[in-house]
Amino acid sequence: MKRREFLSGAAAAGAATGVSSLAAPAVARAQGASGEAMEWKMVTTWPKNAPGVGVNAQRFADAVTEMSGGRLTIRLFAAGELVPPFECLDAVQADTAQLAHSTPYYWVGKAPALNYFTTIPFGLMAWEMSAWIAFGGGQALWEEVYAPFNVVPFYVGNSGVQSGGWFNKEINTLDDIKGLKMRIAGSGGEVMRRLGAAVVLTPPGDIQPALMSGAVDAAEWVGPWLDIAFGLQKAAKYYYVPAFHEPGPGLEVIVNKERFAALPDDLKAIVRYAARATAETTLADFTYNNIKVFSEMQTAFPDIELRTFPDAVIAAMGEATREVVAEIAAKDEMAAKVHESFTAFNAMAEDYQRHFDLKTLQMRRQVMAG
Amino acid sequence: MKRREFLSGAAAAGAATGVSSLAAPAVARAQGASGEAMEWKMVTTWPKNAPGVGVNAQRFADAVTEMSGGRLTIRLFAAGELVPPFECLDAVQADTAQLAHSTPYYWVGKAPALNYFTTIPFGLMAWEMSAWIAFGGGQALWEEVYAPFNVVPFYVGNSGVQSGGWFNKEINTLDDIKGLKMRIAGSGGEVMRRLGAAVVLTPPGDIQPALMSGAVDAAEWVGPWLDIAFGLQKAAKYYYVPAFHEPGPGLEVIVNKERFAALPDDLKAIVRYAARATAETTLADFTYNNIKVFSEMQTAFPDIELRTFPDAVIAAMGEATREVVAEIAAKDEMAAKVHESFTAFNAMAEDYQRHFDLKTLQMRRQVMAG
Repeated sequence: MKRREFLSGAAAAGAATGVSSLAAPAVARAQGASGEAMEWKMVTTWPKNAPGVGVNAQRFADAVTEMSGGRLTIRLFAAGELVPPFECLDAVQADTAQLAHSTPYYWVGKAPALNYFTTIPFGLMAWEMSAWIAFGGGQALWEEVYAPFNVVPFYVGNSGVQSGGWFNKEINTLDDIKGLKMRIAGSGGEVMRRLGAAVVLTPPGDIQPALMSGAVDAAEWVGPWLDIAFGLQKAAKYYYVPAFHEPGPGLEVIVNKERFAALPDDLKAIVRYAARATAETTLADFTYNNIKVFSEMQTAFPDIELRTFPDAVIAAMGEATREVVAEIAAKDEMAAKVHESFTAFNAMAEDYQRHFDLKTLQMRRQVMAG
Repeated sequence: MKRREFLSGAAAAGAATGVSSLAAPAVARAQGASGEAMEWKMVTTWPKNAPGVGVNAQRFADAVTEMSGGRLTIRLFAAGELVPPFECLDAVQADTAQLAHSTPYYWVGKAPALNYFTTIPFGLMAWEMSAWIAFGGGQALWEEVYAPFNVVPFYVGNSGVQSGGWFNKEINTLDDIKGLKMRIAGSGGEVMRRLGAAVVLTPPGDIQPALMSGAVDAAEWVGPWLDIAFGLQKAAKYYYVPAFHEPGPGLEVIVNKERFAALPDDLKAIVRYAARATAETTLADFTYNNIKVFSEMQTAFPDIELRTFPDAVIAAMGEATREVVAEIAAKDEMAAKVHESFTAFNAMAEDYQRHFDLKTLQMRRQVMAG
């Protein structure tokens, strides 16, 4: 997923339509345990009602509003409506907005450790990420990472495994990557760059035209659900699945620390459990829709040719990932600390899953095919 | 997981210690939108604070109590404390208790369709089950199944993939199953019976002695976390993983329909979102602890020999499963309707996952091993 550009596009859209002026009337009311109604502003890095991310950000806001009977109303601002998407963390830190729905990966420029709380190539699957955060020490580390920014993080779900991308040429050997113009960002993009690709960033709305015109040879976006919604199947023939670089990208709600601390206990609990409820619903939403669209896609668009990266290419991606991730961990002490916890759990999880989830999926495959 | 016996054991324990008398003082107070505090009794089919199931039942109760600021307090009764575990559905139907934490599979004698809402051999994985229930029509079907019993169901999580069991002899061919005395119940037990095993039921506390004495040759329980807690590694050498029959057993909270309908909107929302929050936390709890214990187990108990069922055995299990599941679907109209929805989604999910989650787990494996 290239949320970085998803939101650049969104920011541009917000600026163009002037919707940011809508923000003015929404003033957070005074809060307290007196039972007085409050309204909190929630900024997001997503276009309004964007499938998967925007819709589930709204679900989180609705959950808090409903459960509190309106004592705490959360008003959602899409990317660009109140602040530019890349300023969401700053906005919550400064209490311009009281909370934000986003993904930790966007703020790696401020804290490289945040890479681990979105996703790492060949890293944790969605349900393992949730396990690490809730029970494996992840939450405490995450709070430590965010402490200097005056925000408290909550895990609010995951897109599950993403797609490798749409390609106009096949990747049979490592040579096919050399000089490949590909739209892919983040640590996955850095891995592809080291394998010789010319990595470019393209806003979401421009991916399809860029692929069609040959400005890029390949582009990855999210998964079947969103990829088909964006019409990428019209622009490239080979659909490489899955992504090597995004096995389980996590989403966050970050809340201004003083605002959260000042809430009465029941509203604190409502925010905390609303986040966990949203986590469950978000992964279910992505899982259901990806499964459904992937099935429909194969009938509706029979020209799509599914491909997987060859083993030698995956091996090289793995090697490059080790280098890239080691460099992230070397950036500061906090990143090193999170790296140690994440990679230790990832190694244990891998050893477990090859005996459990991987093998179970293989057995179902055998029985269904047989 | 043989919850059937887990709870038989619990019921016995409850009866023996006389804890059921503790139930008497807990009378549900009158409810209403007036803001008057209410106390609801929640019965469960689990021993008090049983890892995974009992602990997360308590978490659900606490979430409702905390979020409502005590307006709706949920008091948990472990198996046997208020009613025998197998009478939980009856108790909620009759409003003896207002809700229960359990698994749908326990009530298949009343409604065979409920099989699908716990698990089916070679069926949905945990996150697919959640997706089917929330977005694939599962919730509406589930409510239809429970309507005659006057209860409303909520999904509250999953144990994830379970283990195949502890064996005192190796299973190399189908002949090794013939005459095998195995502790395994439910539709998985019925599959093993058709393959020639002598299927028996043993209460959880008796599994280890039964394996040690040779009363059974094999026994399945839950997964590494609970299996090791019950000391099964002391009683058998071969640990077959994963289970063929329980790829993602789901858990439920069922609420008396009139009681739920009479709640004010904010408390309705609190119950609904508490269920979803508990779903996320429960799978994370099982995932984290199974991964951790599986890792520790291999160092602490080097004599354990991990095994997987051979392909020919899996194929035969698949064939027998088709028969057993077809018979469940033929039992009544509702079962047929749920079967159709579940199996259609399971087929789509399988086709998707062999390209996505299965392949991602394989790639991680390749890179970690390489």
